[in-house]
Amino acid sequence: MSHDEQLAQAARLDAQDPLAELAESFVRPADRIYLDGNSLGMAPRAAMGRARQLIEQEWATGLVGSWDSWLDLPLRVGDRLGSDFLGAAPGQVAISDSTTVNLFKLAAAVLDGSPRERRVIVGDRGNFPTDRYVLEGLAASRGFQLRSVDFDPVHGPDAEALSSALDDRVALVLLSQVDYRSSALADMAAINRAAAAVGARVLWDLSHAAGVVPIRLDQDGCDLAVGCTYKYLAGGPGAPAFLYVRRELQPQLRQPVWGWFGQRDQFLMGPHYQPLDDVRRYLTGTPPILGLRVLEASLEVLAAAGVEALRAKAEQLTDFAVGLFDLWLVEAGFQLTSPRAAASRGAHIGVSHPDAESLCLRLLERGVITDFRQPDRIRLGMAPATTRFRDVCEGVWSLRQLALEVPAGSAPPAGGG
Amino acid sequence: MSHDEQLAQAARLDAQDPLAELAESFVRPADRIYLDGNSLGMAPRAAMGRARQLIEQEWATGLVGSWDSWLDLPLRVGDRLGSDFLGAAPGQVAISDSTTVNLFKLAAAVLDGSPRERRVIVGDRGNFPTDRYVLEGLAASRGFQLRSVDFDPVHGPDAEALSSALDDRVALVLLSQVDYRSSALADMAAINRAAAAVGARVLWDLSHAAGVVPIRLDQDGCDLAVGCTYKYLAGGPGAPAFLYVRRELQPQLRQPVWGWFGQRDQFLMGPHYQPLDDVRRYLTGTPPILGLRVLEASLEVLAAAGVEALRAKAEQLTDFAVGLFDLWLVEAGFQLTSPRAAASRGAHIGVSHPDAESLCLRLLERGVITDFRQPDRIRLGMAPATTRFRDVCEGVWSLRQLALEVPAGSAPPAGGG
Repeated sequence: MSHDEQLAQAARLDAQDPLAELAESFVRPADRIYLDGNSLGMAPRAAMGRARQLIEQEWATGLVGSWDSWLDLPLRVGDRLGSDFLGAAPGQVAISDSTTVNLFKLAAAVLDGSPRERRVIVGDRGNFPTDRYVLEGLAASRGFQLRSVDFDPVHGPDAEALSSALDDRVALVLLSQVDYRSSALADMAAINRAAAAVGARVLWDLSHAAGVVPIRLDQDGCDLAVGCTYKYLAGGPGAPAFLYVRRELQPQLRQPVWGWFGQRDQFLMGPHYQPLDDVRRYLTGTPPILGLRVLEASLEVLAAAGVEALRAKAEQLTDFAVGLFDLWLVEAGFQLTSPRAAASRGAHIGVSHPDAESLCLRLLERGVITDFRQPDRIRLGMAPATTRFRDVCEGVWSLRQLALEVPAGSAPPAGGG
Repeated sequence: MSHDEQLAQAARLDAQDPLAELAESFVRPADRIYLDGNSLGMAPRAAMGRARQLIEQEWATGLVGSWDSWLDLPLRVGDRLGSDFLGAAPGQVAISDSTTVNLFKLAAAVLDGSPRERRVIVGDRGNFPTDRYVLEGLAASRGFQLRSVDFDPVHGPDAEALSSALDDRVALVLLSQVDYRSSALADMAAINRAAAAVGARVLWDLSHAAGVVPIRLDQDGCDLAVGCTYKYLAGGPGAPAFLYVRRELQPQLRQPVWGWFGQRDQFLMGPHYQPLDDVRRYLTGTPPILGLRVLEASLEVLAAAGVEALRAKAEQLTDFAVGLFDLWLVEAGFQLTSPRAAASRGAHIGVSHPDAESLCLRLLERGVITDFRQPDRIRLGMAPATTRFRDVCEGVWSLRQLALEVPAGSAPPAGGG
């Protein structure tokens, strides 16, 4: 099918899109095609108003008295995130620190409470760097063995492949629900069961899943999770991260960063650290209020659409992209590095090409924003709140055109056009 | 001297105040007397504009491409803070995480690199809670002995009192330059020398000093420091904190939170953590860009005045407050719990009174904002950028009047009026 036909199809899909109105709640630069919402979500229009409210009213006018409403903000926004996007009942999610620091705290909490005979950590060799580095550091400092599993590069972690790495010496498994490169969506319930069968705990990184996958932390038997909020949750660059600790576990585990926001009767400022029994024991220092308020505004905008609708559109968008891949990119020398079944992936797809890095740069010159991942991968991110089918069509078409461009002095590739 | 006379004196001092114009750069609620800038600094008018620039231009319009200018923001703002306020040459200060997390990282870095025979940490039993709790947690997890020193409650840590706790088993000393209760200002150079004499490292918490004390980290032989930016530095509630690591130490120490922002060639996303050799190895996860930009704006406003001018006014303000204490508060049953010499304190003073808690609440009803600290302390904070002499006069007068009010059924106290 021709470019024109696909563009017409994209227009039909955009016209039928029940989330088209939601997209109007975001600022959309007119001159670009943005396929990188998996890296940084677009800005909701409400972000500015909420920042103004925080700065001009709460901070400038309310001054220190505003702490009355700020103190429980990490939990209030956490509860909202938990119920609207994570499938977590209240009292189990807190907004806190960065994803890296939360990974460190929760992983260390498991390791430090682990019996002597459990001295193995299982990781994913393909996981996002900060996840791998945190584990590497914890293993080194605490004398744990780190077992890195090579999961299928397209389909990611699954319970069966994981099982070969599991035994009763494993204390902790750290995995991402959606793989940052392939977009593979893991079966959390199955993996949790496999880990539980040998008495290991799983810590989930939800960074590439939150906001585009209907996550069921409680229902799927999750113990621990963390994630960032600046991708599909649109909290803004470096927005504060979240953590989840299943209620029963909260008083059992102890995280290593003993700070005053985890302390019982915080303002008594007692002589010894006595952590609260609830999810606040996983907090550390003074929370970033400005970031929390802006995130709160973003979550409200997204929650009004609902995660089911966001998920449905993410599947449609990635299906459309995979269809265009088959039509246009195969013959231009690309490979699909993501699962073909929509139910098996998040909201981005990866394609590989020997010239991926230069193609990515040339796309950027044409106003098409994607991202490059070493060594040969291009990620096309389709944030359901803001991406139009038209964006996908034009982005993939540009990629094809650039890849088929006649290199100086060589013949046009066969099958082009 | 009467209230009227003091008010006239305050008016003269305000009229002569070279920083009066600076105060116009901040939002000042008209109906309140704010003596709590030591807890949360007032909002600079520039904060809103900078937040708008970040949200509307850099985030909403620049999208992920803005990372080109965001990536080194923790160091750029750190360098500015270092040169303008901390006496630190470039490349030694980074904005990162919270004070608590930074305390954890830097203290752990020292302990983890400490030889077997050095297994003692020296702390201050009167230090701010989060400082004490972080040390307690690190000592417990790493098998260090925690020696808590009882320094003079008014004059705080000094080299002589510290010496009794120092020997060649001490790895780390953690102290605050300005005590959060008494305001006592420590002699950093003398304490650093005493610690260095036994081979121990000192980690300084500058939270109550930064912005009101001319800090000379390089010149005074400091190894490590952290601090918050939401007090006198006016970065806003929960603004990101800072850390300082002396250049020679940077590649020697290793902090325990191995995250992707500390990684060499971060975007190669290599298989193993190989930390950078510079101050970035003390970074962890994705930095909070919105908070960084607002902090940057606040620092620019304050730096235009200069730390020497801020310090001079802080001394004048606290001198004026101590004078009013002698005139009005002694006979109302208060004790001064801060040093009498301006050169020996930060920018707040503490007073104690048996009814401190209820007095603090009643002050608040009158629009005078101070803060209460268990069990009997009221802190009067005088942020030199924003506090007027008139505020000090009216605040102290209100405190006196409330303390002298006739309790139901009792006679007026002698010497009142």
